[in-house]
Amino acid sequence: MKILVINCGSSSVKFKLFEMPEEKLISYGNVEKIGEEISIFKYYGKVNFEKKLKINNHQEGLELIANALLENEIKSIKEIKGVGHRVVHGGEGFNSSVRINDEVIKKIEDHLFLAPLHNPHNLAGIKGCMKLFPESIQVASFDTAFHTTIPKISFLYALPYDFYQKYKIRRYGFHGISHRYVARRAAEIMGKEKYEINAITCHLGNGCSVTAVKNGKSYDTSMGFTPLEGLIMGTRSGDIDPGAILYLLENLNLKPNEINELLNKKSGLIGISGISNDFRNLLPLYNKDEKVTLAIDMFCYRLKKYIGSYIAALGLVHAIVFTGGIGENVSLVREKSLENMDVFGIEIDKAKNEKIVGKEGKISKETSKIKIFVIPTNEELRIAFDTYQIISNS
Amino acid sequence: MKILVINCGSSSVKFKLFEMPEEKLISYGNVEKIGEEISIFKYYGKVNFEKKLKINNHQEGLELIANALLENEIKSIKEIKGVGHRVVHGGEGFNSSVRINDEVIKKIEDHLFLAPLHNPHNLAGIKGCMKLFPESIQVASFDTAFHTTIPKISFLYALPYDFYQKYKIRRYGFHGISHRYVARRAAEIMGKEKYEINAITCHLGNGCSVTAVKNGKSYDTSMGFTPLEGLIMGTRSGDIDPGAILYLLENLNLKPNEINELLNKKSGLIGISGISNDFRNLLPLYNKDEKVTLAIDMFCYRLKKYIGSYIAALGLVHAIVFTGGIGENVSLVREKSLENMDVFGIEIDKAKNEKIVGKEGKISKETSKIKIFVIPTNEELRIAFDTYQIISNS
Repeated sequence: MKILVINCGSSSVKFKLFEMPEEKLISYGNVEKIGEEISIFKYYGKVNFEKKLKINNHQEGLELIANALLENEIKSIKEIKGVGHRVVHGGEGFNSSVRINDEVIKKIEDHLFLAPLHNPHNLAGIKGCMKLFPESIQVASFDTAFHTTIPKISFLYALPYDFYQKYKIRRYGFHGISHRYVARRAAEIMGKEKYEINAITCHLGNGCSVTAVKNGKSYDTSMGFTPLEGLIMGTRSGDIDPGAILYLLENLNLKPNEINELLNKKSGLIGISGISNDFRNLLPLYNKDEKVTLAIDMFCYRLKKYIGSYIAALGLVHAIVFTGGIGENVSLVREKSLENMDVFGIEIDKAKNEKIVGKEGKISKETSKIKIFVIPTNEELRIAFDTYQIISNS
Repeated sequence: MKILVINCGSSSVKFKLFEMPEEKLISYGNVEKIGEEISIFKYYGKVNFEKKLKINNHQEGLELIANALLENEIKSIKEIKGVGHRVVHGGEGFNSSVRINDEVIKKIEDHLFLAPLHNPHNLAGIKGCMKLFPESIQVASFDTAFHTTIPKISFLYALPYDFYQKYKIRRYGFHGISHRYVARRAAEIMGKEKYEINAITCHLGNGCSVTAVKNGKSYDTSMGFTPLEGLIMGTRSGDIDPGAILYLLENLNLKPNEINELLNKKSGLIGISGISNDFRNLLPLYNKDEKVTLAIDMFCYRLKKYIGSYIAALGLVHAIVFTGGIGENVSLVREKSLENMDVFGIEIDKAKNEKIVGKEGKISKETSKIKIFVIPTNEELRIAFDTYQIISNS
């Protein structure tokens, strides 16, 4: 059964076509720079190509993808039995992936105000695919769904209670598809049932978040009401004194949109280093450039503190998992964020750690009480799997 | 030698008169509601009284105090050899208490922008006392001084680097006089030199902060650029997603001063519980009122996470110390913030914990690797001691 997975960003559409349940990737690619002078369409499958052309909107991008699939991989659009969509924000309403119907679309529309940068594009992707693949079952997978199990003591901020009731201001958490996937996989590796594992899962990519998983369920996570909170990221500040934001507003007279731009686009690794938001550019300068070294050390120190806080929150932890572009590939981050933590029963095996790059592996010493894993994430496959299951059960 | 300690708030002056080095408290009290219709002067010493009268400004308050001391405790103003002042913000410039001279006053004035709610009043107190006690040595003790040892990886936010260089935005930390005092005292109790101890000191009062002390020096602390960051407090939110603040600004159209008021005055325990910012009012309702229970549980959970993160930061911890009104008196907070932390070698002795209220004592089990202490703080005595030392050495 062929399942197409669609992930619409503000100016991009990523796709992957799977044969399920074989989990075989048939084709993948993306359209980028939608709406700009020159857009790009990259396609990998039976043929590979990269085209530059003008793509005006998400709908046009989706049509290009559908046509390329028809030309190269499938004979009829009907072969695609399901389309799985990544949706960033499901609010409190969705605790798992769901088959899309009018009610679901209405609910996603109702949550646009919570994710104005993401959900409108996700919705455009859904509506576009409903036209292009009218006989396919459309499924929504939410970044927030895994985190709907977080208890109130972790998800509430210490604001007046009606800011939660009236305005829905609370911790939602993101990257849930990834955190769930690697938590389940870690349980599997350890021979545990999925609800038997306590783990700390570190998703370190363009965005970074860390989740405390208790009995297989999300118990706390570092991203909050928005994906700005928590860890230091490529261009995002993560945690900062709210008083500092008030100071920027009141004393430096920055406008809210300037602060938004500052904290989301100009801070984090790029802000501290002044050089790049990308670890691939920063790593060669570690211990050579002072600010690059500082940026990486701060990144690791923040992560280390979150790991410590979640060990305290969980009491007992079986595994720590690294995933995402940085988590899978940057052994330095794994080493530094876990160094000198023997007191927790955390012993990283430095030699193993350096060898595991971009692949699955255990990087803890045999004596380490808490096991440490690198598990490449695969959000699209997880969405394809959820879509496959929903179709099979319907 | 008589040392007067002065702590000026926005509408109050607190004082304590000590005989040093005997550490004997001769007299204490405060003026409150300065500038309001009816102000209050409370005095405890050879006589005790409480007067209601109109006090227009800090200078008048200080004069009342000086006159009351002359009437009841001393024969001449010259007997007061030193006056120690609490100053909230010393910026990066002061790493210890200092004798006040023109240069010091200039530096405090230069830092007014960093603590507009506190430093102007502290400065009013200094200038007032220089007139009233012209022959006394004036000493400034800074809340930030103990934290000047915090390394860059802990004190920098992940903002563009020039926000630190140009605008001095960084973690300063507060309650330093208290954190230092209880860290030193814990070392003493454990038979260690002051630079031998690694400790986590929890100052839980009206404001709350927790400090990671490494080799007797502050290594990290939960309050930051302002005293708003970190733990949940009586009326302050502590940590919150910066994205939530942007949302309040951009979507709910709150003004910066409204957000300031919201996060500093209407959040924290009072915000969640809707009842009180004072543990004395909340405790009787624990497990009876849902929101009160939530407020206390959130308070403890946030503290627990900070303790975990600082254990990770320090690697090795000898002691955890509770101080401040809540830390000294509320055994429930100590118990809940340390429960299920055996994995860290933290074992609280519940029976001992319940008995130690408002006094010094060890509350860990004998088997606990990390010792847990309650140590009543005494910031004024510490300021008196610093003042005495500076006079003795000058």
